[in-house]
Amino acid sequence: MTWVAGADGSAYGVTNLPYGVFTHDGREPRIGVRVGDFVLDLAGAEAAGLVLAAGALGRPTLNDFMGLGRPQWTAVRQRLVELLTDEAHRAEVEPLLLPLAEVRLLLPFDVADYVDFYSSEHHAGNVGQIFRPGQPPLLPNWRHLPIGYHGRAGTVVVSGTQVLRPSGQRPGPDGPTYGPSGRLDIEAEVGFVVGVPSPLGAPVAVDDFADHVFGVVLVNDWSARDIQAWEYQPLGPFLGKSFATSVSAWVTPLEALGDAFVPAPRQEPPVVDYLRDEPHLGLDLRLAVEWNGERVSEPPFATMYWTPAQQLAHLTVNGASLRTGDLYASGTVSGPERGQVGSFLELTWGGAEPVRLGGESRTFLADGDTVTITATAPGPGGTTIALGEVTGTILPPR
Amino acid sequence: MTWVAGADGSAYGVTNLPYGVFTHDGREPRIGVRVGDFVLDLAGAEAAGLVLAAGALGRPTLNDFMGLGRPQWTAVRQRLVELLTDEAHRAEVEPLLLPLAEVRLLLPFDVADYVDFYSSEHHAGNVGQIFRPGQPPLLPNWRHLPIGYHGRAGTVVVSGTQVLRPSGQRPGPDGPTYGPSGRLDIEAEVGFVVGVPSPLGAPVAVDDFADHVFGVVLVNDWSARDIQAWEYQPLGPFLGKSFATSVSAWVTPLEALGDAFVPAPRQEPPVVDYLRDEPHLGLDLRLAVEWNGERVSEPPFATMYWTPAQQLAHLTVNGASLRTGDLYASGTVSGPERGQVGSFLELTWGGAEPVRLGGESRTFLADGDTVTITATAPGPGGTTIALGEVTGTILPPR
Repeated sequence: MTWVAGADGSAYGVTNLPYGVFTHDGREPRIGVRVGDFVLDLAGAEAAGLVLAAGALGRPTLNDFMGLGRPQWTAVRQRLVELLTDEAHRAEVEPLLLPLAEVRLLLPFDVADYVDFYSSEHHAGNVGQIFRPGQPPLLPNWRHLPIGYHGRAGTVVVSGTQVLRPSGQRPGPDGPTYGPSGRLDIEAEVGFVVGVPSPLGAPVAVDDFADHVFGVVLVNDWSARDIQAWEYQPLGPFLGKSFATSVSAWVTPLEALGDAFVPAPRQEPPVVDYLRDEPHLGLDLRLAVEWNGERVSEPPFATMYWTPAQQLAHLTVNGASLRTGDLYASGTVSGPERGQVGSFLELTWGGAEPVRLGGESRTFLADGDTVTITATAPGPGGTTIALGEVTGTILPPR
Repeated sequence: MTWVAGADGSAYGVTNLPYGVFTHDGREPRIGVRVGDFVLDLAGAEAAGLVLAAGALGRPTLNDFMGLGRPQWTAVRQRLVELLTDEAHRAEVEPLLLPLAEVRLLLPFDVADYVDFYSSEHHAGNVGQIFRPGQPPLLPNWRHLPIGYHGRAGTVVVSGTQVLRPSGQRPGPDGPTYGPSGRLDIEAEVGFVVGVPSPLGAPVAVDDFADHVFGVVLVNDWSARDIQAWEYQPLGPFLGKSFATSVSAWVTPLEALGDAFVPAPRQEPPVVDYLRDEPHLGLDLRLAVEWNGERVSEPPFATMYWTPAQQLAHLTVNGASLRTGDLYASGTVSGPERGQVGSFLELTWGGAEPVRLGGESRTFLADGDTVTITATAPGPGGTTIALGEVTGTILPPR
């Protein structure tokens, strides 16, 4: 039970406590934690000696705090729960609570490298059927390793940032032409944020996942399908993705998701040793995609074939180092049913099967459209916690 | 004429003056400029008021200085030439010169995003013939846009860093197996370092290349061909590249290369407007690849199909922003002849045609092998300037 008004029973009670970075009254960015509809100013709390984190909470991004490691993350979280539940602390803590509506949320961490995986069997299968009809939906390597690639870290933006429709080369019957993308899409994903780095040459084992990963964000990996289709052979997606990738303003610490781990789908054929995780656990995150306010899909993250621990082990098996702020996303989350897909490419089957939206027939994104991705997870004792939403609105091309 | 002993007539005279970051006597990293076989301590020079750069020369990386922009880059360069040529400055400058042999060179800038292009027609054609025999060597998009993808910024290392042979999944007759790469290769490339950033949503025109790009490094994009071949469908290279990318310790400022610009190969079919650069100029950089001390190839950068200005315009045409420290590499530099290729994949035609090296028959890299890539460029008045070498030695897998 917290003394913060309205927080108990909400999806942002003291079992959640996601971290973010905000500005208030035009002042310098600072770290905060969300409780109910308030943000607790952690820079202020550390300055007042209420919580100790080696000064890391006084920084303008989460990076230094995320670099401290799990024992410190746990200690700070326990202390925050104490401050927010014990009435004895109320008098000193309450002045540091700001109404959420009064703050502006910023990108919570400096992104080091951004990797995007492709770990939903249903998504990869759907894409295979749409682009390679009549052939096996999955390529031969897909069940052997979590396919991934590097994206552009510099264009990761915080939820709420408007997204300019990208221009580029699109294929056409008389060769490529230059112009705005006509097939602008979303990809609903879950991102994992690395706190503790690893040195070059030292792979991170599947069992060490929780020592390195600080928390989780929701991700919308905006995708221009026409640009992507023309450019991606043979080196993969580039400009079709690099114009913007939106992440939630709140980073949900892994510790808030303790009740959300569930057995992941059985893998057949068996994976090679470095990918074997026992127990083999995914996360029961229930995503929802709203397109101009209408809920069009509910992607179930628990159906992902490759787990975040496997993705991290794969990412580093060649000796690649990790840096604080590395972000790796799951790839589009799609369940087995049409109402569970994480992209409009799949929802409209390559644009061939439009959906009804606001009384209109629609396929890809129109200028002015807003897409919001939300998610919930099981919390302790049958409660539900919310992940921070990721939202964005499409602006017409310049 | 410089008063620095031995610098005149060397490839590191005052028409070159590349920038780097070094440590000396175990002290903090600082910026220096190379002249002859000496390094001029620029942090010391700025602290002494000999050169002014808004304090940027007192930083431990080149990023702040590179962010200042071309007018400041030019002013600092002119001042350095003055200090190094006018005997009147000798007494105050000479104490700031350190013998090159006494310093340790570090990664000269914090890499923001790393993009790797694929802009040599000969390289792309060779790879096409090796991997897709009997089909057209170039894919349909290749002459329409400079193909590129994002690499891992966090594993860009400075010349001299030892490279651990990566392990991973390699294809085999009975499915993939895990183990060390058996086809470890090099890619000799030229990298362009962004100084001045650009905002999200604002493409950089081909004509604005020199306003954004600070200078040039040599790049060895180490590649594990077996890992790459198994993983790269459909999203491109990942672990086959991300274990290490080596760059030279010296960044040659674009201003030192004024005499190296030459007409680039004619492009047919004509490119779309945003890629049209007039004049259409490449750089006459003459690379050399030494394998255990034997010169095995001399890749001519002037043969590259896509120019660095076109690459930059393409990279941003979708509205992607630039950050100071962004690095984009040319892709493997290969000329039309076997003795001009930038990879051992090409030199040995996929391993099918071994070369003689040190009396042995060789295809890909063995543990203990050292590869050094050097380059020269035409300087003013018929002189030659050198780019900083990039070298690395292969260590056996852990």
